[in-house]
Amino acid sequence: MSLSKKIDELIAASRALYDRKLIHAAGGNTSIRDGDLVWISQTGAELGKLTEDELVKVDLEGKVLEGGVPSKEMAMHLAMYRARESAGAVIHVHPTYSIALSTLIGEESEDAVPPYTMAFYVRAGRVPMIPYHPSGAHSLHEAVEAFAPAHHAVMLRQHGLVVAGADMSTAIGVVEEVEQCCQIAVATGLKGAPLTDAQLRAIDAAMGRSWDNVTRPS
Amino acid sequence: MSLSKKIDELIAASRALYDRKLIHAAGGNTSIRDGDLVWISQTGAELGKLTEDELVKVDLEGKVLEGGVPSKEMAMHLAMYRARESAGAVIHVHPTYSIALSTLIGEESEDAVPPYTMAFYVRAGRVPMIPYHPSGAHSLHEAVEAFAPAHHAVMLRQHGLVVAGADMSTAIGVVEEVEQCCQIAVATGLKGAPLTDAQLRAIDAAMGRSWDNVTRPS
Amino acid sequence: MSLSKKIDELIAASRALYDRKLIHAAGGNTSIRDGDLVWISQTGAELGKLTEDELVKVDLEGKVLEGGVPSKEMAMHLAMYRARESAGAVIHVHPTYSIALSTLIGEESEDAVPPYTMAFYVRAGRVPMIPYHPSGAHSLHEAVEAFAPAHHAVMLRQHGLVVAGADMSTAIGVVEEVEQCCQIAVATGLKGAPLTDAQLRAIDAAMGRSWDNVTRPS
Amino acid sequence: MSLSKKIDELIAASRALYDRKLIHAAGGNTSIRDGDLVWISQTGAELGKLTEDELVKVDLEGKVLEGGVPSKEMAMHLAMYRARESAGAVIHVHPTYSIALSTLIGEESEDAVPPYTMAFYVRAGRVPMIPYHPSGAHSLHEAVEAFAPAHHAVMLRQHGLVVAGADMSTAIGVVEEVEQCCQIAVATGLKGAPLTDAQLRAIDAAMGRSWDNVTRPS
Repeated sequence: MSLSKKIDELIAASRALYDRKLIHAAGGNTSIRDGDLVWISQTGAELGKLTEDELVKVDLEGKVLEGGVPSKEMAMHLAMYRARESAGAVIHVHPTYSIALSTLIGEESEDAVPPYTMAFYVRAGRVPMIPYHPSGAHSLHEAVEAFAPAHHAVMLRQHGLVVAGADMSTAIGVVEEVEQCCQIAVATGLKGAPLTDAQLRAIDAAMGRSWDNVTRPS
Repeated sequence: MSLSKKIDELIAASRALYDRKLIHAAGGNTSIRDGDLVWISQTGAELGKLTEDELVKVDLEGKVLEGGVPSKEMAMHLAMYRARESAGAVIHVHPTYSIALSTLIGEESEDAVPPYTMAFYVRAGRVPMIPYHPSGAHSLHEAVEAFAPAHHAVMLRQHGLVVAGADMSTAIGVVEEVEQCCQIAVATGLKGAPLTDAQLRAIDAAMGRSWDNVTRPS
Repeated sequence: MSLSKKIDELIAASRALYDRKLIHAAGGNTSIRDGDLVWISQTGAELGKLTEDELVKVDLEGKVLEGGVPSKEMAMHLAMYRARESAGAVIHVHPTYSIALSTLIGEESEDAVPPYTMAFYVRAGRVPMIPYHPSGAHSLHEAVEAFAPAHHAVMLRQHGLVVAGADMSTAIGVVEEVEQCCQIAVATGLKGAPLTDAQLRAIDAAMGRSWDNVTRPS
Repeated sequence: MSLSKKIDELIAASRALYDRKLIHAAGGNTSIRDGDLVWISQTGAELGKLTEDELVKVDLEGKVLEGGVPSKEMAMHLAMYRARESAGAVIHVHPTYSIALSTLIGEESEDAVPPYTMAFYVRAGRVPMIPYHPSGAHSLHEAVEAFAPAHHAVMLRQHGLVVAGADMSTAIGVVEEVEQCCQIAVATGLKGAPLTDAQLRAIDAAMGRSWDNVTRPS
């Protein structure tokens, strides 16, 4: 995909996140990668109204090459890109039910989102949850970085989600699947039946995927 | 209705399903029938952005006549068309409350959706629920096929709905009615009062419809 | 307001009811009055796509003067117009939380909707609920007619709402207020505190309104 | 920002409040300040359709300088502007979950909204709730005025929110954050874990903000 098309998709997807009520106001931030370069929404930008001149071009270490001041959550985006060669897009949003679920379970989890559907489990896999950290904090970015090699979707307690995908369409799909399962969890008071372990293992097997050798943050 | 109008409606309805939050991302698939031919969304297509060149023309046995790779759930669509002469459109989507309700009740049911309204019962009738099967699995398609002669709306546990209708407008109406009743079921914790048996039988009688001779899958 | 403007508002409001998810598919029906004549959506029309040529011109007894077959709920509209000189618009819709609440309370009520806000109570007042009747039934229309002199908003159990207003904007406002209070009722499990009797009587007094001499259906 | 741009933002934000379902019908009112002058929506205006000729120009004492009859809640807007030099925009709306939460807690509170997220706490801070007062009442306006020096977001029990911000974008952001936390509170039955006192104090410290010397209404 050309850079110009990636940027168009970044802008369209950012607005779609607002229209779907997955983010509001100046919350959240989005980025795409092209080679060794990243375009990320600038600090304070409203995703629902994002324009191309609100994007900042940076390298994978976060050096600003062009544009204004990047989002203060940039380090989470870059951690995903550095850890995941296939990642072409990263989304950070504050969806209501993802946050709601995070307030109902323990402080951290390696498997926070009940897998009610195969669509969720295929696209998001196991979604770990890190404890609360202040927005923009170095400790927040480190906690995400620790999970990035093994997980492309991470729940931030009392904050939201970080999701990486091959492109914006894929990443937004992961956000929607996670939020749907979180909504089901909250709406059913966590009484609904998720897929069984055997069903989940069968999906993993069909995908050639395993969680056994996943390196957890220490 | 002309083929060209059917295809316009297929595309408009697919986008409406996304706008109404009845599907998201690359989930779900839609089709229309014209004579012995079917136009179905291709695998990986996003219904919210569906375009005509993402449709695949197939015959009722699933042979591709024109276009790309059809949805991996095509066999469910074709089963509905073969079993139901009046079916001109089929929708498969993953609505949140339909899935939520499916996680709260047993593994299968011949009558899964509480009939809270006459509008639901007239349009959807009895909605059976099949157990969990992996997406795209032959066993999933067989389970739907078994119910197709007697039911035009089938709930797929932890997955979503398959609905056939005379045309796209009718089919989308059935989806909306089912999802509304599922939302009422979940929001009231299944404590709301559905229509009584006598009220349901009166509706069946007025419609000249009976469930007595329905052949159930064995 | 000119007839042409009333019809424009009827169409815009019908589409807004769909966009706000207060109705879906071919459910619901809307009308406006101009002098002794009424324009009502025809049977089977989808409010979300309503066009002027789907309106039927009738007199107050329901005689068709121009257009197709009127909604089968026409008699409810005409009952409102005959009983309420100030009514210039009538809306019948199936909002999810209004129906949900109706399934949680008794079979009928003279005061079905908890008055959580002054905006609701000013605009809708006391909202009675009639028991279930089949759509289009004479008994349904009689039950609405009996309440029409004293109430411009009536809840139909397991069915929805009928609301009359001076014009479409007013009527849609009443629908939104009723649905919001029903949503609060359902979301709080009917545990939220409505306004007190003293607060309600103060509003009635300020409006020069009393429910003491209201003639109830016998 | 030029007056003309402020007015454009006022109109766009008013419509956005309707599109986001934070207000409906003729409820709510919005204003911006330019120097010592205020432009406020006129009484009866529908925010979802607000036009420039429905704005009324007033001074900070409420004297009408141009236009029709201002909103009957104008005094709440002016109290915010007089008490808060930095306030350039004020929004009053009736969001469903804010009202729902207000019916579940006591009659008044100095800290009504559980701080589930840092985004909420940074933008809205402590949100006090005043008891029920009739719309447009002098007592309502006095109660808001008493909190205005220390709080830019005030919950009105069984009524809604009043929020002041530097500009419309900021103010609408506060409304969205408050409503999101209220939705989480209601959806989790107030069982979710808010941020801890230590976490909140750390945010206050980072912002150079303290609630210790806040003068409460007596």
